[in-house]
Amino acid sequence: MKTRLFFCICLLGSVVTAQGSHTIVAQQIKNKGLTDLAAFEMLKDITISVGHRLSGSAGYEKAVVWAKRQLEAAGADSVWLEPVMIPKWVRGEIEQVSAKAGNTTVNLTVCALGGSVGTGAKGITGEVIEVQSFDEVKALGEKAEGKIIFYNRPFDKTLLNTGEAYGGAVNQRGSGAIEAAKVGAVGVIVRSMTNAIDDVPHTGAMRYVDSIPKIPAVAISTIGANTLSKLIEVQKSVSVTMKLSAKTFADVPSYNVIGEVRGSKFPKEIVLVGGHLDSWDKGVGAHDDGCGVAQSIEVIRIIKNLQLQPKRTIRAVLFANEENGLKGGKAYAARSQNVTDVHIAAIESDAGGFLPRGFGVTADSIKFEKIKSFASVLETAGAEKITRGGGGADIGPLQTFGTALIGLHPDSQRYFDYHHSIHDTMDKVHPRELELGAIAITILSWIISQEGL
Amino acid sequence: MKTRLFFCICLLGSVVTAQGSHTIVAQQIKNKGLTDLAAFEMLKDITISVGHRLSGSAGYEKAVVWAKRQLEAAGADSVWLEPVMIPKWVRGEIEQVSAKAGNTTVNLTVCALGGSVGTGAKGITGEVIEVQSFDEVKALGEKAEGKIIFYNRPFDKTLLNTGEAYGGAVNQRGSGAIEAAKVGAVGVIVRSMTNAIDDVPHTGAMRYVDSIPKIPAVAISTIGANTLSKLIEVQKSVSVTMKLSAKTFADVPSYNVIGEVRGSKFPKEIVLVGGHLDSWDKGVGAHDDGCGVAQSIEVIRIIKNLQLQPKRTIRAVLFANEENGLKGGKAYAARSQNVTDVHIAAIESDAGGFLPRGFGVTADSIKFEKIKSFASVLETAGAEKITRGGGGADIGPLQTFGTALIGLHPDSQRYFDYHHSIHDTMDKVHPRELELGAIAITILSWIISQEGL
Repeated sequence: MKTRLFFCICLLGSVVTAQGSHTIVAQQIKNKGLTDLAAFEMLKDITISVGHRLSGSAGYEKAVVWAKRQLEAAGADSVWLEPVMIPKWVRGEIEQVSAKAGNTTVNLTVCALGGSVGTGAKGITGEVIEVQSFDEVKALGEKAEGKIIFYNRPFDKTLLNTGEAYGGAVNQRGSGAIEAAKVGAVGVIVRSMTNAIDDVPHTGAMRYVDSIPKIPAVAISTIGANTLSKLIEVQKSVSVTMKLSAKTFADVPSYNVIGEVRGSKFPKEIVLVGGHLDSWDKGVGAHDDGCGVAQSIEVIRIIKNLQLQPKRTIRAVLFANEENGLKGGKAYAARSQNVTDVHIAAIESDAGGFLPRGFGVTADSIKFEKIKSFASVLETAGAEKITRGGGGADIGPLQTFGTALIGLHPDSQRYFDYHHSIHDTMDKVHPRELELGAIAITILSWIISQEGL
Repeated sequence: MKTRLFFCICLLGSVVTAQGSHTIVAQQIKNKGLTDLAAFEMLKDITISVGHRLSGSAGYEKAVVWAKRQLEAAGADSVWLEPVMIPKWVRGEIEQVSAKAGNTTVNLTVCALGGSVGTGAKGITGEVIEVQSFDEVKALGEKAEGKIIFYNRPFDKTLLNTGEAYGGAVNQRGSGAIEAAKVGAVGVIVRSMTNAIDDVPHTGAMRYVDSIPKIPAVAISTIGANTLSKLIEVQKSVSVTMKLSAKTFADVPSYNVIGEVRGSKFPKEIVLVGGHLDSWDKGVGAHDDGCGVAQSIEVIRIIKNLQLQPKRTIRAVLFANEENGLKGGKAYAARSQNVTDVHIAAIESDAGGFLPRGFGVTADSIKFEKIKSFASVLETAGAEKITRGGGGADIGPLQTFGTALIGLHPDSQRYFDYHHSIHDTMDKVHPRELELGAIAITILSWIISQEGL
């Protein structure tokens, strides 16, 4: 009994001492980060000198060069490029929708959804039918033949987390064209995925399946959606003409960009930090996901700058093609099968560079509770809220290896005002909020590198 | 033993049931608030139709009329004006500082600190001495005679809470003129109270004491401060000329504006929610404290709109003259001594309309723990972090009555970028962040109105 008590006290003592030493390191990390605010300088650089970074574009190739150089400048022990074939979809110049009812014609502000087919030069014309759900589409049956389906289910404004509101609406964008084509529709218009009421359309990925006709799909601004809805309500029969010059080309070769600080004791155990290097072609991908990229490089910079020596390897991975294919994340995980490295944890930042509030964790209960026990240290960055569930699209494929998947949870209130739109620019990012996210990730990756999971 | 157990279970049961019913009401409050986003509409109205509301100005008088009408429109059971004499300080047209060294003259961007005396038409000229602390000023002794003291201690960037950084720097602004005049200086220039590096000066209150000469005081932009500091470093001897047309007049009569929802069971027990109706004359006082005003009125609107009947009275108080005198808060507390109402709690929102994270509480341990036990309900608005210490300037004088003083704690990262400057405008406020603060205050005031303290 006494022996056990002694053991417990020793264990408790070592935990307390470890927490204490982590807290000291966490303070150093916070002070370094907030003094230099380097993540914002990186974000400024990528958004201005590179611009948008759509998969398969010249911008993405510039981003690969930029990211490699940044990881080297941050002091990574090694930096390399990991080959991956990625999609090439091009929006083209033309994206137009006009609605005609009686003698009224309204030009609506739209943009092609990512992956949409084009309409041909003449465009397509059809009567528009407004729906809120796939059930309504199914119920249309033959009535949908030759029509254009207008998905207009808005975000649920009452949800505290706007990510949940997004989750409740985004199937219209992702699968709307498939469901509409099943009943014979010839095109779809989807209300933009945002709580903001403005005249800016938000693009994003949509899917086709080979067995069902591929019909063109656009996002319409929320003001445009409200206008079109009113037009339908008043005029009953509204005809829409869509013109899109979008086109998909063959996949092209490119890279994930990777840099790491080698573990001093267990170099083959990896704590991954990452974001995605690609962006949509509207705006310059500042929050999505320039912030995650800058934060991931900043983790390496802070660790090296403070001359910290992690026991396990801390590796920054900047993934290709998250937005429209996830080829980077899949290739990274596939290659991980063939090496002896073990990914014990992967932390992704892909929810914007806003104030960090904590982390979402997908892992077994033991790992979850262990990560939760780090909360008091994470409070240094105000990011102490550890909740179940979370991760990130790029790191998702690592789940088969038993890797703990962790997503940075910044506050969500402003994210979808900018997401996938021309508003996703650097001026919407606050240097300290962005840096605090980087600091939170650095602290968490540091503790895991020392403690294991 | 069994009886006690039974009692405990019953008590636990009633607590659980009460929490459950509060959670249901909290959901209703959240849904109503996020659906209507009415606080933002009020803020838009006061910042556009009233503008700035400096104590003693025509703007403040317009704000009194505006606020009374808004409380009536929100459905308050009764609305009244509480007379109070308030200061009248006028900035005037002229606020200039130029620095001359050798053949270089630099015009620096400054504004008068609130309450500063003017310089007379000719202005004042003297050699400038840069300091970081009052100890340095004291050490100057006779060398300060006839000089202009330049306080240039910046915010500590490494502090997570920018309010703490403000607290660590603001004595330069508040007491800098007194300390400088003690050693014979003739004017002071104070680095603006902000982490932002830009060319915008931030005004704010400063004090004089009757026994020490009153010397003029300005805030200088952070770029201006860095420029002046560099000039001194390079040129050694720098002469500064200050011109200010600021002037203090006799106090004028005005009002606190008050509206309440009468308690159904204990109407004489008051839960106060409030902010201050006055603002500085730079910008339009959007975050400081248009947000607190809009949120306080929104509490009344939501309670009435949902037809909630609080057991204790919920009273919104919009205080006069927080910025440069605190006359409104003092008058309100003084009058409270003569009535039978008991203020059990006072909640102030005066830290900006940013994302609420929780509340700071100044109260005895029993009350503190009771408020802390509401955290799970406050999580509905993401404002569950209850910490010791906090309140607000206006409600501070109520402490002598044993009132629990509570301050809404929004996130602080962006506040001092705008605070007391021309940047404190409506476009810096996010409708959902602002509303979530109102929702958090409504939930907390509702629970206290039902449970007491």
